Amino acid sequence: MNFKQKLGIIIKKNKSLLCIGLDPDLDNFSKDYLKSNDPIFEFNKKIIEETYDLVCAYKPDIAFYEAYGIDGLKSLKKTLEYIPKGTPIILDAKRGSIGHTAELYAKSVFDYWNVDAVTLNIFTGKDGVIPFLKYKDRYSFLYLRSSNPSASDFQDIDVNGKPLFQVMAEKVTSWKEENFGIIAPATYPEELKILRKIFDNRYFLVPGIGVQGGNLEKTLENGLTKDKSGLIINSSRRIIFSENPREEALKLRTKINKYR
Amino acid sequence: MNFKQKLGIIIKKNKSLLCIGLDPDLDNFSKDYLKSNDPIFEFNKKIIEETYDLVCAYKPDIAFYEAYGIDGLKSLKKTLEYIPKGTPIILDAKRGSIGHTAELYAKSVFDYWNVDAVTLNIFTGKDGVIPFLKYKDRYSFLYLRSSNPSASDFQDIDVNGKPLFQVMAEKVTSWKEENFGIIAPATYPEELKILRKIFDNRYFLVPGIGVQGGNLEKTLENGLTKDKSGLIINSSRRIIFSENPREEALKLRTKINKYR
Repeated sequence: MNFKQKLGIIIKKNKSLLCIGLDPDLDNFSKDYLKSNDPIFEFNKKIIEETYDLVCAYKPDIAFYEAYGIDGLKSLKKTLEYIPKGTPIILDAKRGSIGHTAELYAKSVFDYWNVDAVTLNIFTGKDGVIPFLKYKDRYSFLYLRSSNPSASDFQDIDVNGKPLFQVMAEKVTSWKEENFGIIAPATYPEELKILRKIFDNRYFLVPGIGVQGGNLEKTLENGLTKDKSGLIINSSRRIIFSENPREEALKLRTKINKYR
Repeated sequence: MNFKQKLGIIIKKNKSLLCIGLDPDLDNFSKDYLKSNDPIFEFNKKIIEETYDLVCAYKPDIAFYEAYGIDGLKSLKKTLEYIPKGTPIILDAKRGSIGHTAELYAKSVFDYWNVDAVTLNIFTGKDGVIPFLKYKDRYSFLYLRSSNPSASDFQDIDVNGKPLFQVMAEKVTSWKEENFGIIAPATYPEELKILRKIFDNRYFLVPGIGVQGGNLEKTLENGLTKDKSGLIINSSRRIIFSENPREEALKLRTKINKYR
């Protein structure tokens, strides 16, 4: 079964386009966790247990684990193994490289970490992306327009009247592989709209809802595909550090479904 | 002591602008290494012992370690600890992220791995770079023009008669921090020339000499600063997988110095 099939099944089963970002941050942990042997894993375990029937995917950002070095990566490994088999895992790794090193990153992400999908920085061009796309049952989400304030520094550079990310997106449409989607920012709904026009049928991974302040209604209006799907809406901090993560996840899932 | 001071000292001491890429690849290892407990570390150890007095820096590409998961990263840790204290280490990690996750990557690279310098993908804009530049004694090399065949896919997009990487480079000149340099490709000496005109005094990390086929003479002609320095010329495979790595390193150091 490939990523899209796996995702399609769980979207229906859990009636959800909600993805939870497993981004543990020891600075925000309660004392109870800090006393445990493996605070990061224990924290994630609880989030997974409370939310696994409400999500369409989990998205651990590897930076949160790399910050704690090899120990952090051991907690990541345990976390990935704890996620129920039918739930797709998107490793937010933003890898971006060339030729041979891109092959090695792909090996790390898809063989070693054995996740279903990854996020990629594509500034180095297509030969940096191909090694990932060669894993036909996996999926890659390509960065074209990020959700941060400085995104416009380069991504909006004017190219003959169009912003750069749009020109890049149009180039990417010539890539015929089926197993990639796009990262599209909830914090910039107009840019998301442009991207949906260019990629009418690919999955969009959408960060920026929640603490970053993205507009959910606009995101859904501009981003849903014709069959009212095609979006994977990520929320991290607002859910995982809330008093009741299950309740927060339920609330967001319901809000999303209202517009579908 | 900051990165530039450390680098300046070793360039003089070892009379060298040569950087060796510690990019171990088990597929290329002799049987002797594969029998050892930690082939990657043993391989690197031998390279370091044979070349430490001939280089100005070592550059491990983290992809080669991540490909072997946590075990590979343990070998990286041992390798970094084995490199003599006065020799700068550039971790080729091509990280590129935003806000908070960029902070975590910086923490990983500079606190946990504790290296002197890192390579960064800057497509997300300045807020993804700032967390790295905040480590004042460390240094970041920014990707503007990569050395791979697909580099031109996006990096050469025409922006009012100039290639994109040049427009990005010109924007970057407004960043006043002192602790960053540029990655400039030996495989594209004309592009390197453009970058040197824009950044007349910053360090350039230059991949692409060796197996990738970059032209050394042109690279030095177009890339050296007025004081006949400013370049860190990286070679990996051609040295580390040669029959006599010390001899190869000596040969390349001499060739480089002929043009200085």
